[in-house]
Formats: sequence, C-alpha cells, structure tokens
Amino acid sequence: MLDWINGDGPDNHIVLSSRIRLARNIQGIPFPDRLNEKGSAKVVDIIKEAIDRNPVLAREFSLTVLKDISPLDSRVLIENHMISPALAERHKHSAVFIRKDYRVSIMVNEEDHIRMQILLPGLQLEEGWDLAGKIDDVLEETINYAFDERMGYLTACPTNTGTGMRVSVMAHLPALVLTNQLSRVFQALTQLGLAVRGIYGEGTDVVGNMVQISNQLTLGKSEEHIIESLKGMTREIINKENQARDALMSNNRVELEDKVCRSYGLLTGARILPSKELMELLSDVRLGVDLNLVTGVTTKDLNEIMLQSQPASLQKIARKQLSDMERDTLRAELIRKKLK
Amino acid sequence: MLDWINGDGPDNHIVLSSRIRLARNIQGIPFPDRLNEKGSAKVVDIIKEAIDRNPVLAREFSLTVLKDISPLDSRVLIENHMISPALAERHKHSAVFIRKDYRVSIMVNEEDHIRMQILLPGLQLEEGWDLAGKIDDVLEETINYAFDERMGYLTACPTNTGTGMRVSVMAHLPALVLTNQLSRVFQALTQLGLAVRGIYGEGTDVVGNMVQISNQLTLGKSEEHIIESLKGMTREIINKENQARDALMSNNRVELEDKVCRSYGLLTGARILPSKELMELLSDVRLGVDLNLVTGVTTKDLNEIMLQSQPASLQKIARKQLSDMERDTLRAELIRKKLK
Repeated sequence: MLDWINGDGPDNHIVLSSRIRLARNIQGIPFPDRLNEKGSAKVVDIIKEAIDRNPVLAREFSLTVLKDISPLDSRVLIENHMISPALAERHKHSAVFIRKDYRVSIMVNEEDHIRMQILLPGLQLEEGWDLAGKIDDVLEETINYAFDERMGYLTACPTNTGTGMRVSVMAHLPALVLTNQLSRVFQALTQLGLAVRGIYGEGTDVVGNMVQISNQLTLGKSEEHIIESLKGMTREIINKENQARDALMSNNRVELEDKVCRSYGLLTGARILPSKELMELLSDVRLGVDLNLVTGVTTKDLNEIMLQSQPASLQKIARKQLSDMERDTLRAELIRKKLK
Repeated sequence: MLDWINGDGPDNHIVLSSRIRLARNIQGIPFPDRLNEKGSAKVVDIIKEAIDRNPVLAREFSLTVLKDISPLDSRVLIENHMISPALAERHKHSAVFIRKDYRVSIMVNEEDHIRMQILLPGLQLEEGWDLAGKIDDVLEETINYAFDERMGYLTACPTNTGTGMRVSVMAHLPALVLTNQLSRVFQALTQLGLAVRGIYGEGTDVVGNMVQISNQLTLGKSEEHIIESLKGMTREIINKENQARDALMSNNRVELEDKVCRSYGLLTGARILPSKELMELLSDVRLGVDLNLVTGVTTKDLNEIMLQSQPASLQKIARKQLSDMERDTLRAELIRKKLK
C-alpha cells in the first residue's frame, strides 16, 4: 500500500505527496538508448549487486523485470506512480527495484541507467531528499557514476544534467479554482521557473483540481537550493489555497456545502461513472472532508478510490479486460461499496 | 391530509389522482361576477343552509370564508388543490366548504356560484363521479339550480354549460418523455378533444413529467360518456407508459438506474434546491421507486415532499416570509430530514 494514501502527511489537506527523482548513469556504459538486451541486463545486474551488497537495501527492495510481468501489471505500476510510462515502453530492457513500503522505486534503463524516485505523503521534500541521498550514497559505494566536476551528473538528456534531480509536489487546489485564481498562480509559478502539470506528468491535463508542481532547472543550482525554492513556493500556494478556502467558508458557505454534498450524492448514486467526472466529484468531496462539510468519509477513502478507479487497477480487480462501459460501472460499484 | 398523498389508489404508479369538477349556479341569482359583497354572502348562506340540512354533510364539511384567512393560508389551499387561484383572487366574495378527508371541496363564488371538486387517489373517475353525484343530489334538494332542459346546467362561461363537468387525471409519464413519445401522445389527445396541461392547470408548464389531462367539451355529451372517454384514454396512456418503462428496463437498465440514483443522490445531497429542479429529481426518483430501483423511499414520501416544497407551504412551515434563497435551502433541509 502506497503510504500517501493514508492521508496523514504534513499539510496533507492540500499537498497529497512529495516526490524526489534522481537521474544517474554508470560510468563507461552507453546510455540505455544505445544498449542491446544483453547490455541492458548487465546494467540491471550492476545495480542489483550494489543493492545486494547492502543488507538493509537488500532486505527492503524487490526486483521486478518488466519483460517478466504482464502489460496490465506494468500499467498498474504506472497508475501507482511506481514506474514511468517510458519505463514500461522499454519493457524489453527495463526493470524496477521497489521498496516494500512503496516509498522508493529505482527504475533501471528508463532514459537513464538509474532513475530513483522517493514518494512521501504530504509536504516532505527535505525528508525525501534526505532519504534519496542516503540510498544514492549506498549505490555510489559500488557504482561508479558518470559525473563531471564542472557539469555534475551526466544524463541522457541535457535538461537533466547537473543535479539530475527533479522535485515535485502533488497539490489539490479547489478553492483557487473556485475563486478563479489558479491561472494567475500558474503564471507566477511558470515565471519562477516551475512547471505545472496534471497528475500524470508532462503533457497531461489538470483534472479534479489536482496539479503537479515541479522544478524545471537541474543545472547550476544545488539540490538544497532547488528543494528550498520549491518548498517555499509550495508554502505560499498552501497559504493562498487556505485563504481562498476561508473566504469561501465565510462568504459562500451554503453554496459550497451545496456543491460538495451534491457531488457526494452523485458519487454514491451514480451507476455509470467516467473517470474524468469521478476526479471532479472527488475534488469536491475532498474539499468537503477537509472543511468538515462531509462526515463519514475519510481522505484515505478518497485516495483509495482515486487509485483503484484507474483503468488498469480496475481490470486487475475484475481479473479481466473491461470495455469503457464496464469500467465506468465497476468504478461506480466499488465506490458505493467503499462509501456505504 | 390529502389522501392521494398516501399513494395507494388504483394505478397509482402512473395516475396520482383523479378529479371531477361540477359547476352549478343558483336560479334567480346573478353570476358571482355581478354580485356585491352582500349578494355574495347570501350565496354562501344558501349553500351553507343546504349543507347544514343534511346531517352527514353538516358533520363532514367545514366552511372557510376567504376574507377571514391570511393570503398565505389561501395560497396553501391553492397548493393543496383545495381551491383555485381564481377563488383566492375573489377573496372578498368567496368561500369554500372542505370535507374533513379533503376528498371534496365546494368552492363558492368562484366563476360560478358552486364549483364542487372531488379529488381521489389513483384512477377513480367513476368513483369520483359517483361521489359528486351524491353530494350534488343533496344540494339540489334545497337549492334550485339554474338549469335549462335543452342546454343543461347554465354557467357563467359558456364553455362549461351543459354538464358543467370537467374531469381530469394527474399522470406521471417519465418513460414516455425519456423515449421521446410524449409529444406524439399529446397530439393524439388534443385531436381527441382532450386538454393536456401542467399540474397547476391552464397555462402552466409541464414540469417533472407530470401532466394533467382533462376533457374540453361539457356540452352535448352525458357525464357518463365524458368519464368513460377520459378513462379509456387514460388506460391507453397507462399502457403506453408501462410499455415504455418495460422497454427501458430491458434495454437501458443500467442507464436508467444511473439516472434515477444520481437524482436520488442530488435530492439528498443538495443544500439549495430550486423548485423546478426538485420536480425533475422527484420524477426520476418516483420512477425509480415504481421500478424498485430505489429502496428506502416510498411514493408517499415523494408526494409529501412535492406538496410541502411549494412556496406557501414552506412559509407556513417556517412561520415567516422567506426569500427565494431561504425557500430553496429550507426545501432541501426538509427533504434531507424526510429521506434520512
């Protein structure tokens, strides 16, 4: 179970999760793009050895080789944010080490040899960086990273060179949307060098008022600086969202309650529930839970619903291929069971 | 309590109520339009005397003089279909005798001296005519009706002359609407000399798939013929609606359940509920109750909600004037209490 699901991280009423991603490559081996299957397997072996040499890591991580699992299982891993779509596409060459608590995944042979990801509940960027650093240090005891004194960590794509780090938070900003402030906040963030995206990363739409905010630059700034900067911006966004929520509660309490409770009624009533509509309803109800306008539902319930309602996860539950309509009805059925 | 509310009349899943209205005038007294207050009071006295002379009627009916009650109370009587808006408008001259079981009201000095109305649950036109005839006979023992051998009962407006009778049923036809058949049915009814209207009579829109179907002609046909004709047409409409419901259940069961249960979710979730939206939601839920798609709600609950959610009835409950917004929130609150 992904532990951000429990909804008990710091500032969790707005920031669902924090993510740190480090890109690393092994000195003397071509980037994954240039490797054949044998070369790719060797990279997996090198990393496995590095993990196995450390008793703690060896106990905590388990290896999944992508070509050994079904396409459905790899889509479930994508939906759980354990691997990227790019890793799944390279399934003949790729693998992933996942820590038992799902807080850490180490993707092998994605765009770079190593893509380490830390996923923590709530706003915990420093904690994430601390954890990433420790694992990175252990790996470095065995692995000779491709590193340049002037450039920093070398990566397949130059936009990742330097720290090789990308940090992001997933934030739920319904009140900024309701008060028409989100696009202004987005503009400000973009001007400050941050990227704002939907929850499935680059090129995805913002649905359900859920956004992913991340750094763009990896070069010329220290890891600490990048983290401090995103953390500061996130704190400001949290403040703005909280102010907007307070204003709505003071000035439009009944309208807000109406919106929230209607969405809860639709969530429990619907027999056919498309995923986009679900995300919108979940957003309203999540806000309602945060503001104590809805009782008998927890943030954890909503997170579980969000996760299990995704297409591959649904098919995993149903143990079969599902048509769009079958997905929409199973989604509605599972929600009713959970919220009954 | 209006007894059609209980929802246990014949064919009640489609026909909520049957209504018979008789127009009568007293020989030798000008039509109400031409009467001053004294003359109007005399008409009330004559009818009161006729009722009082019969022990059964005297015990069952109570007199309400319109100028003695508040405008709000008279609006509540309109909403309960006990009096017409026209009677309320003529409040300086008008009165109404209402039977304790609310099945019969005798309006005095509306357009005619006497407008007797029988309101029975479900499809009970013959039963209604039977009851109307009996009361009419009692009144005629004392009152000399304006009657012409050739024309029949004389009335203020020639369209009511003859039998002086109007018969109507209030029918709920959601499946004919969902399957786009209603306008065709309406055309057929109109060609057959029937009128189709919203539930508040002439000039009102059809809301919540609820229609009032009534005869147009009162002259040249016997009462029995008028009743038989409307009853036959109503039976055909019931058949068509039932066929449409069966077809929906066979071919679009999930979509129908989705629609019905979403509406139930909105009905219980909403904190602000405008009356038009309420009627639409009630229609869906009523269909759901009829088809056993919704449990834990009864037709009686829905009828009570429909009745108490009307503007004057709400203000009667609140014991004060209410703004539109206050009405919409109180309406939602009462519904939640009832359906909890």
